[in-house]
Amino acid sequence: MKALIYNGPGDKSWAEAPQPQLLHPSDVIVRVDTTTICGTDLHILKGDVPAVQPGRILGHEGVGTVVETGTGVQELVVGDRVLISCIKSCGHCPNCRQGLYSHCLGEEGQSGIGWVFGHLIDGTQAEFVRVPYADNSLYRLPPGVSDVEAVMLSDILPTGFEIGVLSGGVKPGDVVAVIGAGPVGLAAIATAGLCGAGTIVAIDRDANRLAQALEFGATDTVDSQRPDWRQEVIDLTDGAGVDVSIEAVGLPETFAMALSLARPGGRVANVGVHGSSVDLPLQELWIQNISISMGLVNTNTTPMLLKLVAQHKIPAAKFATHTFSFDQVLEAYDTFARAAETKALKVIITRNPAHS
Amino acid sequence: MKALIYNGPGDKSWAEAPQPQLLHPSDVIVRVDTTTICGTDLHILKGDVPAVQPGRILGHEGVGTVVETGTGVQELVVGDRVLISCIKSCGHCPNCRQGLYSHCLGEEGQSGIGWVFGHLIDGTQAEFVRVPYADNSLYRLPPGVSDVEAVMLSDILPTGFEIGVLSGGVKPGDVVAVIGAGPVGLAAIATAGLCGAGTIVAIDRDANRLAQALEFGATDTVDSQRPDWRQEVIDLTDGAGVDVSIEAVGLPETFAMALSLARPGGRVANVGVHGSSVDLPLQELWIQNISISMGLVNTNTTPMLLKLVAQHKIPAAKFATHTFSFDQVLEAYDTFARAAETKALKVIITRNPAHS
Amino acid sequence: MKALIYNGPGDKSWAEAPQPQLLHPSDVIVRVDTTTICGTDLHILKGDVPAVQPGRILGHEGVGTVVETGTGVQELVVGDRVLISCIKSCGHCPNCRQGLYSHCLGEEGQSGIGWVFGHLIDGTQAEFVRVPYADNSLYRLPPGVSDVEAVMLSDILPTGFEIGVLSGGVKPGDVVAVIGAGPVGLAAIATAGLCGAGTIVAIDRDANRLAQALEFGATDTVDSQRPDWRQEVIDLTDGAGVDVSIEAVGLPETFAMALSLARPGGRVANVGVHGSSVDLPLQELWIQNISISMGLVNTNTTPMLLKLVAQHKIPAAKFATHTFSFDQVLEAYDTFARAAETKALKVIITRNPAHS
Amino acid sequence: MKALIYNGPGDKSWAEAPQPQLLHPSDVIVRVDTTTICGTDLHILKGDVPAVQPGRILGHEGVGTVVETGTGVQELVVGDRVLISCIKSCGHCPNCRQGLYSHCLGEEGQSGIGWVFGHLIDGTQAEFVRVPYADNSLYRLPPGVSDVEAVMLSDILPTGFEIGVLSGGVKPGDVVAVIGAGPVGLAAIATAGLCGAGTIVAIDRDANRLAQALEFGATDTVDSQRPDWRQEVIDLTDGAGVDVSIEAVGLPETFAMALSLARPGGRVANVGVHGSSVDLPLQELWIQNISISMGLVNTNTTPMLLKLVAQHKIPAAKFATHTFSFDQVLEAYDTFARAAETKALKVIITRNPAHS
Repeated sequence: MKALIYNGPGDKSWAEAPQPQLLHPSDVIVRVDTTTICGTDLHILKGDVPAVQPGRILGHEGVGTVVETGTGVQELVVGDRVLISCIKSCGHCPNCRQGLYSHCLGEEGQSGIGWVFGHLIDGTQAEFVRVPYADNSLYRLPPGVSDVEAVMLSDILPTGFEIGVLSGGVKPGDVVAVIGAGPVGLAAIATAGLCGAGTIVAIDRDANRLAQALEFGATDTVDSQRPDWRQEVIDLTDGAGVDVSIEAVGLPETFAMALSLARPGGRVANVGVHGSSVDLPLQELWIQNISISMGLVNTNTTPMLLKLVAQHKIPAAKFATHTFSFDQVLEAYDTFARAAETKALKVIITRNPAHS
Repeated sequence: MKALIYNGPGDKSWAEAPQPQLLHPSDVIVRVDTTTICGTDLHILKGDVPAVQPGRILGHEGVGTVVETGTGVQELVVGDRVLISCIKSCGHCPNCRQGLYSHCLGEEGQSGIGWVFGHLIDGTQAEFVRVPYADNSLYRLPPGVSDVEAVMLSDILPTGFEIGVLSGGVKPGDVVAVIGAGPVGLAAIATAGLCGAGTIVAIDRDANRLAQALEFGATDTVDSQRPDWRQEVIDLTDGAGVDVSIEAVGLPETFAMALSLARPGGRVANVGVHGSSVDLPLQELWIQNISISMGLVNTNTTPMLLKLVAQHKIPAAKFATHTFSFDQVLEAYDTFARAAETKALKVIITRNPAHS
Repeated sequence: MKALIYNGPGDKSWAEAPQPQLLHPSDVIVRVDTTTICGTDLHILKGDVPAVQPGRILGHEGVGTVVETGTGVQELVVGDRVLISCIKSCGHCPNCRQGLYSHCLGEEGQSGIGWVFGHLIDGTQAEFVRVPYADNSLYRLPPGVSDVEAVMLSDILPTGFEIGVLSGGVKPGDVVAVIGAGPVGLAAIATAGLCGAGTIVAIDRDANRLAQALEFGATDTVDSQRPDWRQEVIDLTDGAGVDVSIEAVGLPETFAMALSLARPGGRVANVGVHGSSVDLPLQELWIQNISISMGLVNTNTTPMLLKLVAQHKIPAAKFATHTFSFDQVLEAYDTFARAAETKALKVIITRNPAHS
Repeated sequence: MKALIYNGPGDKSWAEAPQPQLLHPSDVIVRVDTTTICGTDLHILKGDVPAVQPGRILGHEGVGTVVETGTGVQELVVGDRVLISCIKSCGHCPNCRQGLYSHCLGEEGQSGIGWVFGHLIDGTQAEFVRVPYADNSLYRLPPGVSDVEAVMLSDILPTGFEIGVLSGGVKPGDVVAVIGAGPVGLAAIATAGLCGAGTIVAIDRDANRLAQALEFGATDTVDSQRPDWRQEVIDLTDGAGVDVSIEAVGLPETFAMALSLARPGGRVANVGVHGSSVDLPLQELWIQNISISMGLVNTNTTPMLLKLVAQHKIPAAKFATHTFSFDQVLEAYDTFARAAETKALKVIITRNPAHS
């Protein structure tokens, strides 16, 4: 089969790779029908994620069709159309039993981390992929949901909702600020209403992304390049700050922005993937009754979000800005990497571009 | 009357001060029967809290007797024996209505902060004190509770419980580490069992304090001067780290210790008062599903804790290590300031030393 | 002044009554600008609520203007335009401190119950009304909110939201059934989306009300006169039953309907005011992991709901179907009492009918 | 092998039965080392549970040793000493993914109910038992836990804790009343402290059981045969009623007792297995802000409780009052059935009576 292979920093290829085989009773082999690219894939390609070894097939998002099932698989049969979650979950380790699939202790891939595809085992940017713990890591798709809608449920929608909105403790009537209107920030914006957010402020430097944010449910936008950006946000509150501040970029300066917006008693939810440490001004914050959360998605809201996507209550298809066939995957990477210029949000790579 | 007056950095006196007067209908004048000293008072005396102006009477903990009530007071009458909470609460601002008394917006003292005694208005280390919003800031004491027990409810017990145990989300069976076995750390230790902590590890450099921690409910102690202190703590868990890590010191290194102990999905509760910023290694933590909380006590658990003290379910009296009369207050400060040497936890200053 | 006086079962009059006077420091006198009628008022007029004595002025909903304030009032001044909450709250009793204003222990009216207007003290269907504990029982209105919108916040919107949606534990994606599409049921329907309800099923016998329910946010309607009504509701779920079943009628048969719809692990929220006991089939339910809630509104979400009404995120004005002047109040009662025929939801009684 | 077989109402035998075989990849065969009898077994024997067919091996509690594993089993190996949970959990159905194992939709036994042993499939009162979904339904035992301690974790400890204490929402400082001091009521009493209960009142008609309740952690006892029993309980509160009322009997009159004790805003947790419907006086309760919970145990706290038992923080061994060998199982039933007379709590049936 063909697959997108990481050959070491700065080097990738769409090349022949061995067909995946069942290794354990709980495995399933899935033919990938649609996949996409995540910002994390770009980080890996720069060499920022040393755990990814050369030769690894990348990708942790996808929709496909079951072609083979292990002897222990109970829920799935050949022919099932499935969503591939970016997180594997064994379903019976202490962490999985508490819903902390992000830190699944199942040995497949590596004990202690739920994200294995395109990281510790071969991923979804390929014609076929082996999925461990398939009963808990795949979700059968209902008929009315398109591949393009569904692939947004592999990672960005649950990440924005769980790590942004839920970890941020968004409550009815809250003022929520989202710093960074890329795919995951927009996913937080698109789902903040599920917890009753009254005001949703998108904050970014890119006018195009701010305009898109309004399409996804933002009630207000603030250009963070303007000197008074902070005051503009505060003016949308009662003067004390936002209830919840969601960081969806991953830089020290955007984390500091998020901290600076939170009201006494407010919450800061970090969604961004960070490459360096940040300064936490505890001499000011200790008295502010702030809480700060962070983490990898658990995907335990995926079934619920899938139901809402099927009911057309989350605008999942709107994330897809460009479509490519499998053999155009390198072009897809190029388009995604130049997002500011191409206005790409999510680029779709699919077996049947005409139908997506 | 006599009072402990802050005359500027490094300068305090037990001197004559004007008798406090009712200023607003919700005020009460309390004769102070028993008070104590907090680590924060030492910080103020060093000049670390610029909001405290020379001439201010210090102290935010106390037990006393109502001697005069404003026309709007509904719950209290002259002669009531009362606990003075370190936090004033107007009871009707948006923050108070949500239980965030720490950030009471009532204008008395200063809008936006609940801690006013010995900070923004005159405090409790005096023969008399004016208490604003008295219906919500004082608690009538039941007969069986001594002054010494009660004064631990002014600040340390609710602070340890609310900002340590509750904000840390302690759940039944949890392994809880408390870094710093001073009065507030011990208060967290003494109340962690109320949320079902299974293992309570006290961590300190002082052998005396570690021995005391066992008296307050710690199940294990670890001397943080030992090179393998962290591994000793981890060995008390299933290997992944503690469920809840409570920082009760207020230094960058102890905050780093707290972070280093938390398991994936764990919580870090900062109780310490910090004077400088700390480093937050988000490049490692973003994927760890950690949450970090911090804040000033709300004292909304004070009535519940008072009930448990009255039932002798919290060893409140055990915090009192030394007793002084009012005119020995400077000696009390000296004893408290040299705690490592004197083994002081809380020093009691009382009108009737013979009875306490 | 003129007021609507209850003279005993079946006998009411719009008659002269003494102008209310300040009785306590926390009292305010409000000139009533707009009021309305609740189903409970009809029950009182039938003699079903013995605590209401002849001579009592009825009404517990209203919007008005402060004309006099007690000496202990801190937040309000003469001229303030205010919402009158149906629940008084002293703000400092143990119940109020925990947000249980419905059972305020403040002595005004009667200890232990928050609903006093038009029940234990004179109410709002009058030209003036005395409001006890005014700082906590009145809410200053922002300029953009009309009297008609605001009066829906006195009772029906917080009742539907708190006792229906919040007590029912509505979560993102839930299927919620609301039995009874009268004003309070519609209030639950209008606010269920704040907690992320995915499917909101209105169930009623009245086709007009079902049509109105769609205007308030119901996604589906079911006519409970149809023999298969239950199956029609179940067909809107995954087959196991609804997540939350809200009873908003108050009859044994509608309570039984609510029970019959809940899935294993589901919640039944009773909002209806009941006049007789009901049968609870514990021999079937004990194994179903159902929970059942009930209660009088606390109104602690009123400030949040007011904010959302001001942002036009809740269609409050839509509840008002008829408008009357104060001297037409008997006609208003007649219209409201014949709601099935007149299609009345809430009837507005106002000082300035031309402007409402 | 030998097993306790239900032959129809009133008829049981300790007789030869076929050795259980692996049927599915997730199955395990366990040699039963220790089992016990539950009140539910007595109900079944009376014919009260029609789903139990003649020929069924009874029992849903047990400790044993793995002797054979299916090909899909990942966590267990032959020789593992295991706790058998009374609830099977497939680990991947929507209910299991939300922790509602009590209503596991896995097809084994019957879809929609987690309790299958001794009910829908053969149970644990036998020399061997087949355990479906073994990775999620068995718990490996640590060395320091005896069979007798462990077998209390099959049902009574998680039931008392989850359905009594947790569903009842016990909070620090609460007054908790437990009606019925049989094994499950005592399990609630023994675990209420994990949620901080301040006062734990055991209520029963049997003086022996009240005395035992004090051993398990009750702070007070009330003999419900005394005419003033209710007032005696209320006198242990602030006069308004208990915070949480736990029904652990299963009769209409005890359920009514539980309702009568709850304060406004309180919770009633039904743990009892009921055979008939009860009266719910909604005409009085609708205004009381009471909530009522009920259900079958999920056993998702079993690992946590096991940890606390291993730490000797729950007096599990104290439940065992009598010990029998397997071939004395009929005598064990007789002793358990005459509990008032024999003072039996849990009767132990074990392969090695000498060692238990």
